[in-house]
Amino acid sequence: MIKANDPKLKSWVEIPSDSDFSIQNIPFGIFKTDSLGPRAATAIGNKVLDLSVLQREGYFDGLNLPEEVFSNHVLNDFIGLGKETNRAVRNRISDLLEAGNEELRSDAKVCDLAFFEQSEVEMCMPVHVPNYTDFYSSEQHAYNVGCMFRDPANALMPNWKHLPVGYHGRASSIVVSGTPFHRPKGQTKADDAEMPSFNPCRLLDFELEMAFITGKENGLGNPVSTREAEEYIFGFVIFNDWSARDMQKWEYVPLGPFLAKNFASHISPWIVTMDALEPFRVPGPKQEPKVLPYLEYEGNYHFDLNLQVAIQPEGQDETVVTNSNFKYMYWNCLQQLAHHTVNGCNMQVGDMYASGTISGPTPEEYGSMLELAWRGTKPIALKGGGERKFIQDHDTVIMRGHAERNGVRVGFGEVRAKVLPAK
Amino acid sequence: MIKANDPKLKSWVEIPSDSDFSIQNIPFGIFKTDSLGPRAATAIGNKVLDLSVLQREGYFDGLNLPEEVFSNHVLNDFIGLGKETNRAVRNRISDLLEAGNEELRSDAKVCDLAFFEQSEVEMCMPVHVPNYTDFYSSEQHAYNVGCMFRDPANALMPNWKHLPVGYHGRASSIVVSGTPFHRPKGQTKADDAEMPSFNPCRLLDFELEMAFITGKENGLGNPVSTREAEEYIFGFVIFNDWSARDMQKWEYVPLGPFLAKNFASHISPWIVTMDALEPFRVPGPKQEPKVLPYLEYEGNYHFDLNLQVAIQPEGQDETVVTNSNFKYMYWNCLQQLAHHTVNGCNMQVGDMYASGTISGPTPEEYGSMLELAWRGTKPIALKGGGERKFIQDHDTVIMRGHAERNGVRVGFGEVRAKVLPAK
Repeated sequence: MIKANDPKLKSWVEIPSDSDFSIQNIPFGIFKTDSLGPRAATAIGNKVLDLSVLQREGYFDGLNLPEEVFSNHVLNDFIGLGKETNRAVRNRISDLLEAGNEELRSDAKVCDLAFFEQSEVEMCMPVHVPNYTDFYSSEQHAYNVGCMFRDPANALMPNWKHLPVGYHGRASSIVVSGTPFHRPKGQTKADDAEMPSFNPCRLLDFELEMAFITGKENGLGNPVSTREAEEYIFGFVIFNDWSARDMQKWEYVPLGPFLAKNFASHISPWIVTMDALEPFRVPGPKQEPKVLPYLEYEGNYHFDLNLQVAIQPEGQDETVVTNSNFKYMYWNCLQQLAHHTVNGCNMQVGDMYASGTISGPTPEEYGSMLELAWRGTKPIALKGGGERKFIQDHDTVIMRGHAERNGVRVGFGEVRAKVLPAK
Repeated sequence: MIKANDPKLKSWVEIPSDSDFSIQNIPFGIFKTDSLGPRAATAIGNKVLDLSVLQREGYFDGLNLPEEVFSNHVLNDFIGLGKETNRAVRNRISDLLEAGNEELRSDAKVCDLAFFEQSEVEMCMPVHVPNYTDFYSSEQHAYNVGCMFRDPANALMPNWKHLPVGYHGRASSIVVSGTPFHRPKGQTKADDAEMPSFNPCRLLDFELEMAFITGKENGLGNPVSTREAEEYIFGFVIFNDWSARDMQKWEYVPLGPFLAKNFASHISPWIVTMDALEPFRVPGPKQEPKVLPYLEYEGNYHFDLNLQVAIQPEGQDETVVTNSNFKYMYWNCLQQLAHHTVNGCNMQVGDMYASGTISGPTPEEYGSMLELAWRGTKPIALKGGGERKFIQDHDTVIMRGHAERNGVRVGFGEVRAKVLPAK
């Protein structure tokens, strides 16, 4: 067992029982305040712990970290140090926060400098993202979309069960939770219209996804096997792959989604490490037909991770519209990475690889409004009155995710984004 | 007229009459030698001129450049200074190289340090590429592909004449001319096979494209109009968008090309500026049906630029297999950029935007083997004997491009890549 994952660990920092940020989590992120520039941190309970202060004060001495590695504006350099070092740092932070360890706790000067309330800081993009790929790996989602746009008998494309279908997305427009954005404008064409028109997107949707972040380079021409893939995965974030359904329908043939996606994607600010998620791994579905040898894997690499999406219209309480789970994937992260590199494609540190919309088997577990309201035919009632087929202006969409087992909770916090009207 | 474009200019540096690197060109690139690390340069005749030396020796004083901006390993910081500064530097280099100007010519010490034979240096990636998009903007190419895979009556998709179709590509695997790469492996499925198989790509193809590089950021949520777009375009390179046709056919439905493209793309090392190409701009085709207002533009923004592709099997002379021209585009760079940003998508400095395969109206002007050999039905004879339907192991594919007018030649040199056998 990874030392920091021990369910027996307790922290001297107060941790509310429903906190995502237990001592078994120790995620990594970047925060800033009105007076301090971006720097690396972990989250514990309701607190943020400034790792740049800990490093400066010598708390990581002996781990051979580059000077000021936690003072960078992004985590790429830290992540790129490799899994052994990342793990040693996480274990060390765990030690410092463990009940009974007085080393940091008794250092009032440093505690005063390094601890912040989460509510008092602003979270930033945790990494620079050199490349972003979006997969399409939930069978229920692919089936639902196939039913809507083709027919139930041939819902899945012939290739779907043979390879993790994926496509390249836009890295520049991935932003952190809380970043404002405007409803995109673009071309759409009604089925009965002769010509397309230019207007604000009418069918704005979220897609509930998880994304993994790579921490190691393979180099052009060097495939990564499923056996090696875990070494390349630093951790995960929640990913809201905003989609303009009406724009997508008109533009996507034959080369895939483009402007319907690249106006914004929001991620949760804390990267929960692959290590921290290890206790929550579960078996995946039996894959039939049998996959090609390069996609075979051993062990459990699906994650029992509860996912939730809520819509909060301006001035109203939120309404939870779906409860899904990351375990509902057909293809897992090892297979996605092995497939992506099997032709020699090179991974870089900080790359993001999103899962595709995660839809569970029942209608309450679907991962997009397209599916939840079934193309607008089954509007979702809101607690505060009204209903939604898609997302309206001034709505805030909130995604949450956490795993729980043996009394230990490890989670991601929220990714939250408010839709402003088209400019 | 931009000063450095004056056709009357002559250089004191010897320039062969068929050189792409006239004094009216002054492109930008990055080179290294056995003893010198990567640094910025221009090309003139058969020479490379080290701009980091010129800056250090004060030749750019007064232009307010950041210290050591030409000593960086990529041009992004220089490009990001903006068009006015980029233009001032190009004009200044032109002055220094102009016949009659003795300033640099008489400075033997600096000339000795700054001039290299092109044959003696190694060219590097000129920019770090944060984002890469590939368009599909040649009508003849889209028509040809549509004829082959659908039917001539409906060769173009309904959206094709309404918007410049494009998709996101992989930035990490864009490499400079000369970088070795291996034939990719991947999944393919024969039409009559029940299951896919895993094997080296059998139908490896080039795609002859041009790509523009952006030099300015718009910021998320801020569309760039066709009127503003030129300010965002620093210059162009030749782009070989390698394609594994058999892998593409199996994987691309419904989300577009992925592993069939992202194993490698080769670019020419010298970025020829938008400014230097100004004298070669020509009108584009009349666009019918009329485009939406955000895609309308004024002026000439197509380029009369001769493009050529040759195949050189190991130990043989090369065979020129196509002569195309960049003027054969339906959508131009202003329209591509305006479309890409109309939803608020943000451009970054160094982004690459490729044109899509450039096919001219006659079969001798097609931009890929798929079209030239028409799906393998019309093999191309090679000068040295043999024929090609697609590209074979150990073949070198060479692309070249130049414009010529009023006795002035401005070109890109070559992008050259040799296919090594699958690993």
